[in-house]
Amino acid sequence: MDETMATGGESPYPEMIRNLPEVEIPLPGIRGRLLQGERRQAVFFEIEEGTQIPPHSHCAQWGIMVEGRISLTIGGRTRVYEKGDRYFIPDGVVHSATFPTKAHVIDVFEDPARYKPKA
Amino acid sequence: MDETMATGGESPYPEMIRNLPEVEIPLPGIRGRLLQGERRQAVFFEIEEGTQIPPHSHCAQWGIMVEGRISLTIGGRTRVYEKGDRYFIPDGVVHSATFPTKAHVIDVFEDPARYKPKA
Repeated sequence: MDETMATGGESPYPEMIRNLPEVEIPLPGIRGRLLQGERRQAVFFEIEEGTQIPPHSHCAQWGIMVEGRISLTIGGRTRVYEKGDRYFIPDGVVHSATFPTKAHVIDVFEDPARYKPKA
Repeated sequence: MDETMATGGESPYPEMIRNLPEVEIPLPGIRGRLLQGERRQAVFFEIEEGTQIPPHSHCAQWGIMVEGRISLTIGGRTRVYEKGDRYFIPDGVVHSATFPTKAHVIDVFEDPARYKPKA
């Protein structure tokens, strides 16, 4: 178990979210906890400063910033998102992100199989 | 189906959230869409201006403001919450709320049976 998310010393997420199953992510610097529904899934992400997410696309995704900042490029347009800002990434639209600060963000994915819990 | 949430003309939630099952709520002025997990549930609320939620208590609840304002009293302490603000209501602590504006808020409930979908 990851210590930061386990102790929650600096986490904006309460224990009841931090103890959800962790998702399998192939990129360093990103951790997420999974609320798995039948038709959708929500992931409570914690992302380290300096993390880079290369361009990719998938099912529709909606997110809300909890803490920190994300520089997010959606379909060629870049904007910085902060606390409380929301974004929507339509199905199939290429997007990428960089993290000028440590960030926490909640994402909802249209495809309930977008992320899987760690084995 | 509720027209406002169906058309989404003014909703901060995308279609993929607005078409989740609506929860059963006995109070007027409150609607919610349910992301039901095995261990937790998330509800995407839309609450009309002037709505009042009387004092009550239940399982632990964590929320984040999406839009609008809530005057929330938790255990006797009142604070106004706005876009991006978060709150945590521990298990069993009495809380109540009033809504000086229309508001949207996402709540995560520790008890996955706190809300049920409308029959």
